[in-house]
Amino acid sequence: MSQEIPYKIYLEENEMPKQWYNVRADMKKKPAPLLNPGTGEPMKAEELEAVFCKELVQQELDNDTAYIDIPQEIQDFYKMYRPSPLVRAYCLEKHLDTPAKIYYKFEGNNTSGSHKLNSAIAQAYYAKQQGLKGVTTETGAGQWGTALSMACAYLGLDCKVYMVKVSYEQKPFRREVMRTYGASVTPSPSMDTEVGKRILEAHPGTTGSLGCAISEAVEVATTNEGYRYVLGSVLNQVLLHQSVIGLESKAAMDKYGIKPDVIIGCAGGGSNLGGLISPFMGEKLRGEADYQFIAVEPASCPSFTRGKYLYDFCDTGMICPLAKMYTLGSGFIPSANHAGGLRFHGMSSILSELYDQGLMEARAVEQTEVFAAAEEFARVEGILPAPESSHAIKVAMDEALKCKETGEEKTILFGLTGTGYFDMVAYEKFHDGEMSDYIPTDEDLQKGFDGIPSIPGIQ
Amino acid sequence: MSQEIPYKIYLEENEMPKQWYNVRADMKKKPAPLLNPGTGEPMKAEELEAVFCKELVQQELDNDTAYIDIPQEIQDFYKMYRPSPLVRAYCLEKHLDTPAKIYYKFEGNNTSGSHKLNSAIAQAYYAKQQGLKGVTTETGAGQWGTALSMACAYLGLDCKVYMVKVSYEQKPFRREVMRTYGASVTPSPSMDTEVGKRILEAHPGTTGSLGCAISEAVEVATTNEGYRYVLGSVLNQVLLHQSVIGLESKAAMDKYGIKPDVIIGCAGGGSNLGGLISPFMGEKLRGEADYQFIAVEPASCPSFTRGKYLYDFCDTGMICPLAKMYTLGSGFIPSANHAGGLRFHGMSSILSELYDQGLMEARAVEQTEVFAAAEEFARVEGILPAPESSHAIKVAMDEALKCKETGEEKTILFGLTGTGYFDMVAYEKFHDGEMSDYIPTDEDLQKGFDGIPSIPGIQ
Repeated sequence: MSQEIPYKIYLEENEMPKQWYNVRADMKKKPAPLLNPGTGEPMKAEELEAVFCKELVQQELDNDTAYIDIPQEIQDFYKMYRPSPLVRAYCLEKHLDTPAKIYYKFEGNNTSGSHKLNSAIAQAYYAKQQGLKGVTTETGAGQWGTALSMACAYLGLDCKVYMVKVSYEQKPFRREVMRTYGASVTPSPSMDTEVGKRILEAHPGTTGSLGCAISEAVEVATTNEGYRYVLGSVLNQVLLHQSVIGLESKAAMDKYGIKPDVIIGCAGGGSNLGGLISPFMGEKLRGEADYQFIAVEPASCPSFTRGKYLYDFCDTGMICPLAKMYTLGSGFIPSANHAGGLRFHGMSSILSELYDQGLMEARAVEQTEVFAAAEEFARVEGILPAPESSHAIKVAMDEALKCKETGEEKTILFGLTGTGYFDMVAYEKFHDGEMSDYIPTDEDLQKGFDGIPSIPGIQ
Repeated sequence: MSQEIPYKIYLEENEMPKQWYNVRADMKKKPAPLLNPGTGEPMKAEELEAVFCKELVQQELDNDTAYIDIPQEIQDFYKMYRPSPLVRAYCLEKHLDTPAKIYYKFEGNNTSGSHKLNSAIAQAYYAKQQGLKGVTTETGAGQWGTALSMACAYLGLDCKVYMVKVSYEQKPFRREVMRTYGASVTPSPSMDTEVGKRILEAHPGTTGSLGCAISEAVEVATTNEGYRYVLGSVLNQVLLHQSVIGLESKAAMDKYGIKPDVIIGCAGGGSNLGGLISPFMGEKLRGEADYQFIAVEPASCPSFTRGKYLYDFCDTGMICPLAKMYTLGSGFIPSANHAGGLRFHGMSSILSELYDQGLMEARAVEQTEVFAAAEEFARVEGILPAPESSHAIKVAMDEALKCKETGEEKTILFGLTGTGYFDMVAYEKFHDGEMSDYIPTDEDLQKGFDGIPSIPGIQ
């Protein structure tokens, strides 16, 4: 293993994963099932199929199959923008003067600007297979909506996106990218849906939330013939598709005999973090190796670090199934000064369960320190990171600086989920000293917790 | 050579070029030298060194050395974002139903969003070596300014950018990217310089031009201690640095036994086209192989197809040396509806000479057809192309469709210089049907030609 590590490790096309890895198969205690909010009973496949595509429902419910074949058409699509590079951050290491070895898996080299395309193409593919006309979805920072637009354009599906109003306004050009790919984009909450009208009546002037946009997209999917709803994060199926990130990372590291000590990812709903850590977590669960996992979330939306592990709605309109997860309550909306994504009130059930079992840590960071880390990173590594990704950068830099103090030569791997090209309004605020931090008070959080349903016999 | 061609060919790090290729060495008739506008004599190194860095002046004047070593520090920087992928456009081929094989060299996977970084790091490196405080430059679409900001941030140099006013207004977020990398950005023409004041007085309300921004940047460089001027296109040194594009393309193609029949690039000042074709043109000049080369320019700024091959100023303020080139006159400013870059009034002297010798063709295309091609490309190949790059896409698609008619299985290579993430204002106009075409009349062009100097004994 004396081989010199290149700046970027690209797998060969024939080394790319041909199967996704389902971490649930290796979990002794499985993530809690989705519940029907009416009956309190686990959701049945038939019930879920009213909202989701058939094949995706199977993937959602499958806690046992460890490896699931990636259909050839999806593999071919992946070849358009994958493998993504595993980058050795030589310049950052030098800049920090740390003995740590820093790697990042960079998912931003595609037009969606993030890892979201990995699941978008999968979900669009199964919708197409089922003979649907189109899909509906929500988007926060806009990366998921863009990714889904791209996948739908490629497959010839209609795509209706509900975009959180604050992001719609902060990111005026995201809409145009989605339009380039033929999608329709509506700021949420909107007057297009019953649930949107209800939310606007209760909270006039709201800047929206992911939970609210989800409600609208689900309503449109279930009231229009030939449509289903798709979601870019949180769900088990999404973590399954995103496992391609971790599988590629692991294959690239194995090729060069590298073993990470610490694996760090930003966490909103958990799509990137779950995908990145899955195969490594699998080894840990099977007792084959040990790793330290760190989830990084915004202090302004702290579901892991300050949320409750309970059954809750995934959406503000309370029309979705209940999921057991670390949650701030489906009514929680991050303060308007919160930039970028990572604004979902809950967290993937898989990651919530792993966190609850103590297999993973979590840290909350504030946004000005995140943007400072982003700018420092951009200047030495070239890449202009997305605000979301910069949460992971911040903690990776913190860990590397700890190594400088202790002299430890730890190997750090983090997920660089995407680029910040559509986040320049936020960068501008940061440059002009107009960016503020916000940590919700206990009272602020209590309002969200008050909305979590109490379910007889369950919680 | 029965090996299957992957979607993307990445060279290994150790296969990356260690030398740039200087096509002038293989030209029997060399490009015409820069002239001193006062004396009409070829510029001497000492004269050029008042404006440009010493080492870059050597490269500018060197018509003989075929291969020039890439300094190790630049090679290391290249490893941060290179090799760029050579992409087999399988999806586009299928979409067009053409027997042609289409390849593109994609230079957009870095934060500058284009190939400009290849020369920016080289020019910044030599400025640093010379012990300078900083550099000044102009930028049109903003890619060059961003690239230079990144290179300067990496090396710790000050960077002052004069940005063509219309681009500054159309691309509000480019400025923030440059600020992220610590550069100062001034819309041009400005009141900061004597030449800017003069131009504003003569043309109040002008939207600016590259030629005008060059004048301002040169003035600032020559009137501030420790500064030199750097340029992102047109110059011989730039084509030298950009040869890395062609060298990588050729190495990747050679590895798989691919020989292109047609090589297509967009042409503004010629930086990408010159870099892409250099090693292939070298083979043609040495009689080792033959290729068809096509330069694609906007019909609204048609220096190759409607310009004159004469000595002219590179800048509007007429303070730069004279270059022999295909030119529309240094006073030519594209109409305000012209989106994106490719707005320089002249063309690289190297490319001008090759074109004049009939070694290369040129085509002019209109911008609505360019954006239509861009959108079609984005939907099948995923990448959202820059307007500049889309000129090459348009002609590559035209050539592939010709093959469909004739049944020829031509191999087409084109340069995809960058991404359109900062061009969404133009895309929005296109989507809303508000984009127009503009072809200058002969009278319009005559105004520009009238400004070309007549030089006793030369022209």
